Amino acid sequence: MRGDGMNKDFENLKPYLDKSMAMNTAMALFGWDTETLAPKAAVDQTAKILGVIAGEAYNSIMNDEVKQTVYKLSEEIKEGKETGLTEVEKGIIKQLKKDYEYLEKIPEKEYQEYSELQAVGASRWAEAKNADDFGKFLPTLKSLIEYTKKFAVYRIKNGEKPYDVLLNDYEEGFNQEILDKFFNKLKEAIVPLLKKIKEKPQVEYEFLFKSYPVDKQKEFSGFVAEYLGFDMERGVIAESEHPFTSNLHNKDVRITNHFHENNLESAIFSVIHEAGHGIYEMNIPDELTLTPVGGGSSMGLHESQSRFCENIIGRSKAFWEPIYGKLVKTFPEQLKDISLDKFITAINRTEAGLIRTEADELTYSLHILVRYEIEKKIFNEDYPAEKLPELWNDLYEEYLGVRPTSYKDGILQDIHWAGGSFGYFSSYALGNAIGAQLYHQLKKEMNFDEVLRKGEVSKIINWLGEKVHKYGKLKNTNEILLMATGEEFNADYYVEYLADKFTKEYGL
Amino acid sequence: MRGDGMNKDFENLKPYLDKSMAMNTAMALFGWDTETLAPKAAVDQTAKILGVIAGEAYNSIMNDEVKQTVYKLSEEIKEGKETGLTEVEKGIIKQLKKDYEYLEKIPEKEYQEYSELQAVGASRWAEAKNADDFGKFLPTLKSLIEYTKKFAVYRIKNGEKPYDVLLNDYEEGFNQEILDKFFNKLKEAIVPLLKKIKEKPQVEYEFLFKSYPVDKQKEFSGFVAEYLGFDMERGVIAESEHPFTSNLHNKDVRITNHFHENNLESAIFSVIHEAGHGIYEMNIPDELTLTPVGGGSSMGLHESQSRFCENIIGRSKAFWEPIYGKLVKTFPEQLKDISLDKFITAINRTEAGLIRTEADELTYSLHILVRYEIEKKIFNEDYPAEKLPELWNDLYEEYLGVRPTSYKDGILQDIHWAGGSFGYFSSYALGNAIGAQLYHQLKKEMNFDEVLRKGEVSKIINWLGEKVHKYGKLKNTNEILLMATGEEFNADYYVEYLADKFTKEYGL
Repeated sequence: MRGDGMNKDFENLKPYLDKSMAMNTAMALFGWDTETLAPKAAVDQTAKILGVIAGEAYNSIMNDEVKQTVYKLSEEIKEGKETGLTEVEKGIIKQLKKDYEYLEKIPEKEYQEYSELQAVGASRWAEAKNADDFGKFLPTLKSLIEYTKKFAVYRIKNGEKPYDVLLNDYEEGFNQEILDKFFNKLKEAIVPLLKKIKEKPQVEYEFLFKSYPVDKQKEFSGFVAEYLGFDMERGVIAESEHPFTSNLHNKDVRITNHFHENNLESAIFSVIHEAGHGIYEMNIPDELTLTPVGGGSSMGLHESQSRFCENIIGRSKAFWEPIYGKLVKTFPEQLKDISLDKFITAINRTEAGLIRTEADELTYSLHILVRYEIEKKIFNEDYPAEKLPELWNDLYEEYLGVRPTSYKDGILQDIHWAGGSFGYFSSYALGNAIGAQLYHQLKKEMNFDEVLRKGEVSKIINWLGEKVHKYGKLKNTNEILLMATGEEFNADYYVEYLADKFTKEYGL
Repeated sequence: MRGDGMNKDFENLKPYLDKSMAMNTAMALFGWDTETLAPKAAVDQTAKILGVIAGEAYNSIMNDEVKQTVYKLSEEIKEGKETGLTEVEKGIIKQLKKDYEYLEKIPEKEYQEYSELQAVGASRWAEAKNADDFGKFLPTLKSLIEYTKKFAVYRIKNGEKPYDVLLNDYEEGFNQEILDKFFNKLKEAIVPLLKKIKEKPQVEYEFLFKSYPVDKQKEFSGFVAEYLGFDMERGVIAESEHPFTSNLHNKDVRITNHFHENNLESAIFSVIHEAGHGIYEMNIPDELTLTPVGGGSSMGLHESQSRFCENIIGRSKAFWEPIYGKLVKTFPEQLKDISLDKFITAINRTEAGLIRTEADELTYSLHILVRYEIEKKIFNEDYPAEKLPELWNDLYEEYLGVRPTSYKDGILQDIHWAGGSFGYFSSYALGNAIGAQLYHQLKKEMNFDEVLRKGEVSKIINWLGEKVHKYGKLKNTNEILLMATGEEFNADYYVEYLADKFTKEYGL
């Protein structure tokens, strides 16, 4: 029976939900503003304000009245009572229950200590990275690992390993068994392929790094975002040090870009990537936005949409056929001798490097593989933190054939662990794989290249909206994949896609 | 005795004050964002969020616990008890007491009705203005007048007239007696002067309306703002439909500008005006910012700072001497035949027009005079709202020598009354007059023109900081003027300044 949304208990929750949503939106706006525009000197006073708002956000949900109602309704749903709750309302209760379960397993004092550690983690990491001194970050890292491990143990439900608890936080239903299978396949296929490619001469790509005036780059990347479906009536594009997506709600979605005068590729593919995230958020239905089940389903699914846009759509020849002429018109001097084929070959080149955020489509997931294996050692084997830089370097050498000679190009390159985000990285690789699985299905339902060639990219975006975006957080990754593709997560499509694509690109 | 800031009652207030400050700052950020950047489609959902935040801001102060403490401390201060409160803390208690006194005189139900009316006022006014149909706004205007009058009567303290209550809200210590004297002097001096000027040929100014590329205007107006002392480490300049100033705190002050390709004057004097507001906010001391006594003292005093910068500094020859060359360099083609003297004459021309926001220095206060006389008729004589457009037009004809032929160039041009802001307009004219009084004093203390000619405008700005800005809301206009100039508000300086300046400008 479909609920009528008139449950009295749920009605009592509404003011709390409204407050929580308002506080979270305010934090999102401050976050965006700080990265894009706020004056430098504002930081300390604005941090104080944000602390107060964050406290209000927390208290709006984490209080006895809300808790009792959530548990009561949760019990009634479980018992199959006629609650009159709509599917959305049920989803909200489920989501809130999850939040409570997380917190109630952890002693308040320890959570407090951990939060303080998290708060300083980023600056400790930044200092260490700037000084290229792992030792400066080591004590913080050790404490973060210790707390994360302890909390994971507290939260074990059915005898799973602590690291599985963490993986499940970022991607519900995923664990080491699934990820081991995924990463093993990937390793077996990609590591040898990469070695073979290394022996081939590199393709011509230097023209991408000529001088490209920033205002022209801005103009073109704005065009591409809109061409892809990023709606400027409901969105904003601004500039920041690192591109990111932020959204206040489904009618206010914001992406940023960063422009380098001598790099055409960076701005174009950054904006396509962020537009992929942004379009996901724009497609969240009105009845979900500004609720705890508004927003993308998971990290992995979110990343699947941005990577799908960036790589599967954005690096295909068919996508560029109708618009490459416009790019050449924008940069007539720089691109006058570059044919579409040359351009496509250049933007699909692969080369193993040290830095994850600069990695190409083929090598990206190997960077994640390194981090996944390290996290497994940390949480399954109590691997000593002191020895992690060495392990990092060894794994890079083994999988990517390159060895970092500094911490900042090695283990200190990413901020994630400094905020206690262990188990997060694998969602990037999952995102790639989910995208390939969706792509496999899409090609059965439409002539993908033909659609792109006709400039009808909206058909593909609408398909993603219908199959993925519209559920918000009401469904998890496997539920969505099962409905969209007829099966749960299957890594084969991704490995086949990569192997096939790069074998052809490099004529192997 | 100076307090040590350890009053226990006051300590209990702090979390409430912190929350209020955080909510108010969030509202300021949303307000800024909506005017400068937010996507169009966001408006409804963002309004919902703002409603929740506004409610939280209100409740953080308007609750029994805060009220009891405020009244208790207020009583103790009055009785001369040793409270240990600092001057800032006493100022905060005084400010909060004022807020309570305002609200407790008004029945909650009526206040609620009035708030709803205020909320729709702006859109009713906008519809009427767009349709150029006063009738569409009339019912709302009548209700707004009715509530405002009723509330003013509730709040009469010592037998003053209702309109005096309103005037006092915007400018503490000011009433009709003071303002009548002020406006009468003004009328007597300026109306005949304007008539004489009308008979003289207009000066050459058309060159200000050549084509001036927007990016160059942006560059130069950014320079002028910084030259004046607007600190880009603590400030932001953006674009919006109408220029305004907004601030989160003393280290995050934001001004906007608007650029018209065919108008050099607008962007330059807008940015100088807003920088004047902004510098006031930047000079609020750390111990005051983010408290109820942070921010400028009153509407009139704020406007005195922006107008001082715009007119007394910004339209003086001495100010332009060191920087006019830079302006010519920025627009070499457009200004090649324009000497500094020609430029100064052009930016100081006067011509009576219909629109207040486009008025020049001489005629501006006459626009305010019209509104003041109308408000007096509304509140002292129950003048029928139906007849206000006719009254408006008659007064424009009498004082400015021009008669509106549409409502939108007449009575519907300003938004203020639509939000219930009666008594507000006169603070604009007061701002001009306060600026002239400060100028009179400044000239006794330094060689004003010489300082500007040397490019040492910071000496003047520092003087304003020391005499006006640093008090925040701890002192009112008359207290500040008495300390700075040795006397309370005195309109003579302004009338003399205007008469003198424009008699010379037009060689009368």
